[in-house]
Amino acid sequence: MAGCAAALSSFFFEYDTPRIVLIRSRKVGLMNRTVQLLILAYVIGWVFVWEKGYQETDSVVSSITTKVKGVALTNTSELGLRVWDVADYVIPPQQENTLFVMTNIVATLNQRQSTCAELPDAKTVCISDDNCTFGSIDVHGSGVATGKCVHYNAHVKTCEVIAWCPVENDTYVPRPAFLKAAENFTLLIKNHIWYPKFNFTKRNILPNTSATYLKSCIYDTKSDPFCPIFRLGQIVESGGQSFQQMAVEGGIMGIQINWDCNLDRSASHCIPKYSFHRLDNQDSDHTVSPGYNFSATWGHRWYHVHKARMAVHVSQQRGWHCVDCPRLLPIFRISRQLPTSSVCGHAGKAS
Amino acid sequence: MAGCAAALSSFFFEYDTPRIVLIRSRKVGLMNRTVQLLILAYVIGWVFVWEKGYQETDSVVSSITTKVKGVALTNTSELGLRVWDVADYVIPPQQENTLFVMTNIVATLNQRQSTCAELPDAKTVCISDDNCTFGSIDVHGSGVATGKCVHYNAHVKTCEVIAWCPVENDTYVPRPAFLKAAENFTLLIKNHIWYPKFNFTKRNILPNTSATYLKSCIYDTKSDPFCPIFRLGQIVESGGQSFQQMAVEGGIMGIQINWDCNLDRSASHCIPKYSFHRLDNQDSDHTVSPGYNFSATWGHRWYHVHKARMAVHVSQQRGWHCVDCPRLLPIFRISRQLPTSSVCGHAGKAS
Amino acid sequence: MAGCAAALSSFFFEYDTPRIVLIRSRKVGLMNRTVQLLILAYVIGWVFVWEKGYQETDSVVSSITTKVKGVALTNTSELGLRVWDVADYVIPPQQENTLFVMTNIVATLNQRQSTCAELPDAKTVCISDDNCTFGSIDVHGSGVATGKCVHYNAHVKTCEVIAWCPVENDTYVPRPAFLKAAENFTLLIKNHIWYPKFNFTKRNILPNTSATYLKSCIYDTKSDPFCPIFRLGQIVESGGQSFQQMAVEGGIMGIQINWDCNLDRSASHCIPKYSFHRLDNQDSDHTVSPGYNFSATWGHRWYHVHKARMAVHVSQQRGWHCVDCPRLLPIFRISRQLPTSSVCGHAGKAS
Repeated sequence: MAGCAAALSSFFFEYDTPRIVLIRSRKVGLMNRTVQLLILAYVIGWVFVWEKGYQETDSVVSSITTKVKGVALTNTSELGLRVWDVADYVIPPQQENTLFVMTNIVATLNQRQSTCAELPDAKTVCISDDNCTFGSIDVHGSGVATGKCVHYNAHVKTCEVIAWCPVENDTYVPRPAFLKAAENFTLLIKNHIWYPKFNFTKRNILPNTSATYLKSCIYDTKSDPFCPIFRLGQIVESGGQSFQQMAVEGGIMGIQINWDCNLDRSASHCIPKYSFHRLDNQDSDHTVSPGYNFSATWGHRWYHVHKARMAVHVSQQRGWHCVDCPRLLPIFRISRQLPTSSVCGHAGKAS
Repeated sequence: MAGCAAALSSFFFEYDTPRIVLIRSRKVGLMNRTVQLLILAYVIGWVFVWEKGYQETDSVVSSITTKVKGVALTNTSELGLRVWDVADYVIPPQQENTLFVMTNIVATLNQRQSTCAELPDAKTVCISDDNCTFGSIDVHGSGVATGKCVHYNAHVKTCEVIAWCPVENDTYVPRPAFLKAAENFTLLIKNHIWYPKFNFTKRNILPNTSATYLKSCIYDTKSDPFCPIFRLGQIVESGGQSFQQMAVEGGIMGIQINWDCNLDRSASHCIPKYSFHRLDNQDSDHTVSPGYNFSATWGHRWYHVHKARMAVHVSQQRGWHCVDCPRLLPIFRISRQLPTSSVCGHAGKAS
Repeated sequence: MAGCAAALSSFFFEYDTPRIVLIRSRKVGLMNRTVQLLILAYVIGWVFVWEKGYQETDSVVSSITTKVKGVALTNTSELGLRVWDVADYVIPPQQENTLFVMTNIVATLNQRQSTCAELPDAKTVCISDDNCTFGSIDVHGSGVATGKCVHYNAHVKTCEVIAWCPVENDTYVPRPAFLKAAENFTLLIKNHIWYPKFNFTKRNILPNTSATYLKSCIYDTKSDPFCPIFRLGQIVESGGQSFQQMAVEGGIMGIQINWDCNLDRSASHCIPKYSFHRLDNQDSDHTVSPGYNFSATWGHRWYHVHKARMAVHVSQQRGWHCVDCPRLLPIFRISRQLPTSSVCGHAGKAS
């Protein structure tokens, strides 16, 4: 009991501190302060000025709407003279954060449900009905086999299928692309951002943009970096690709809008930066199943649509603001060294 | 060699420790312990209790489906008496995490591919065929010029274009909005969440919700905070906007569903919180190119559609759980001070 | 003034350092080094080797395109013999990161705008015209009341509505699902990834995949883990669910593609891992409003569509790379101890 009380009294009423030697030496003293200064400079320079460790950060909430403009005229033996406008080549009419522009078509006109010869390949070519199984479905085929063997053309017989007839044949894709004029279509991107923590909103049509400028401008990295209207061809070229080549098989472009804002400065310094990148990389390794295409139907059934998908991405954006936060802890750790060393002579302000 | 052995022996078998002064002073001793206590309280209070630094966090995997209900009746000279239901005004019929409700229409009925006069503006008004260039395409125009100058109306002549005719004229947008009744449409949001790390799933239709309640309830911040059915008009008003005003030009509402769950507590405390915000901010600065609209076609070609886009966003959500993790390192740093100071008297537990 | 100068001189030209006792003891010395070694091992083992604290991380930029293949044949009294291909059951034809496959239908054929009897329920059943209010709209109803009470069938009278007639009745959903053959449809997922910081791109069709293999393979966890073609039925079963059960009411499957890459190793080690999970959890708690469905129209108006939504998610992915970065700070803190302790004998390299 007495031992316990003594231990407690010792715990509360005694204090250990290292003995200090005071060295009166200009060289050592200056060296000590220089080292301390360097550490201080590192901390302030790196954590505060460079990394802005004193700032609170917030992620952006963003909304994007897009609008394409442009008209193309085509004249083929199959479809005749035809005008294509935005309601024809943007499918579906709108999507969130992304946009699809048709650049090429494999059209199969006037399909209807009936029976016809399947496309010839290793599995479907036949000599007599014995080669065809009634009711069989091939996962890569166009329909359900009727069990008959019929003429695909004068030279080849294939198994008959019940399907949307005539069946679609996408072996040959038009070259150059059917809607090669899409290169000159323009894309207006409206992007609203919101930093909820700072209740800061802005949009990519900057406040000083006039309606007149918006009617005539086209984005250019150097001359018009804040014009939100882009030429499709130039988006693809900025990503280091050829539009006409991409238009044939289809592809995906990513547009990054980067809002890296220091909100301690004026709101007018918070401006978007655009960058472009092809997302379906076309390495020499990647020759299998290239491009991007899908099937859609119009009034007549159906066109097989090859499209350049222009995906609009908003990149991870950051906004800063001064608030103390857990990130200050590491700074506390180092700054604590200073009082400790200056305390030594005065016995006892150690933390 | 001998020097090296001596250095090694010194490295392994000698130990430096500072000389300690023991100060027997109630004031200094208590002050020392108080300072230590404050630091300890700060660490435990801030890092553990407030920031829950002992918990592991996980991001949510979420899926959202939406369903709109409501019918509107319109009667205009152009379209006659017409009923509009969900299959008419939600375009496309479904999307992921977002939803489009048509609120206004600029209808151009019975368009077909032919030639007609372009809309009059500075570039297209003409006096004779000499003013029109055959084959020219204006990026803001409706079609491809034929090179002729024809009457747009009794007073004005414009260049003829091959296009979807008659060309669309969206200068005048109906006011009030065509489908102003959309204010009373309801939106059911089904949101399933999943925290993969904790294998925790939940949905926003809470377990104690009955089918009867779900048939009649409407979300209200105070009386029905867990009803997943929202009135469109009230979503917009909760975001501080006027539905009828927004319905004319179109706009984008964000709905945030916040699942901020402390999974150390019962699962029944993990509940969603809804908040609403207009994403296309309508500042006085932002008068250029307001609203949100796009072009779509129905059986007849085509209506120009103005819509309120109700984007449903799931915000960054967090779930917590107790697991030791790298975030404990900073705590280790400070607690290390305590053994160090208590070790001094006992020669040698320094780290 | 003199005091100030003295304080300054003392600040710059003097240096405090603790007095050191040198203890020549094998036990204490070895213990000291062992403790230091353990801390060092912890730091190197945990922060460097396990957590890879020396590596910079980057989030992936990803693009996904999908393509479904498969044909189904149905024969019902209502729709007759019909073939369904991808352009029929994928609605809308394409979306970003997600995909909708129709598995069930409640068809209401040949609807047109006219007047007819509303579906009978507690609110709509009537005896005479007095029970029906002209112009009233029920949010769960199909149209706008005309104020008349008419025969729904031989036994029941309901209020007449102006609506798309006949009104849709989805009380009974086909069991088994109408397109139960969707179980054998295949889904090709093309996923391109890009780590912008490291300028590293890859796709899930690996470089050594041949066109022949891609034509015949089906994903299997064990035998074909890198085949990007999935059978719908197997996706659902891998998520622990029954496809035929899910096809009736609809549901949402999440496919995770995990690219967890250590780019310090060869690029060929950076491979995708697939996992599957049902996102609309089907607990016993969750019997209210199950499944997933929406309304869409075809040429004839309209089918009510029940679909299994196969949402393709790309999970949060990480790539690593060696660069020094702020995460090195905590390591600096501990390694600093070593010079400090080895410096003590030499008076004055303390930081």
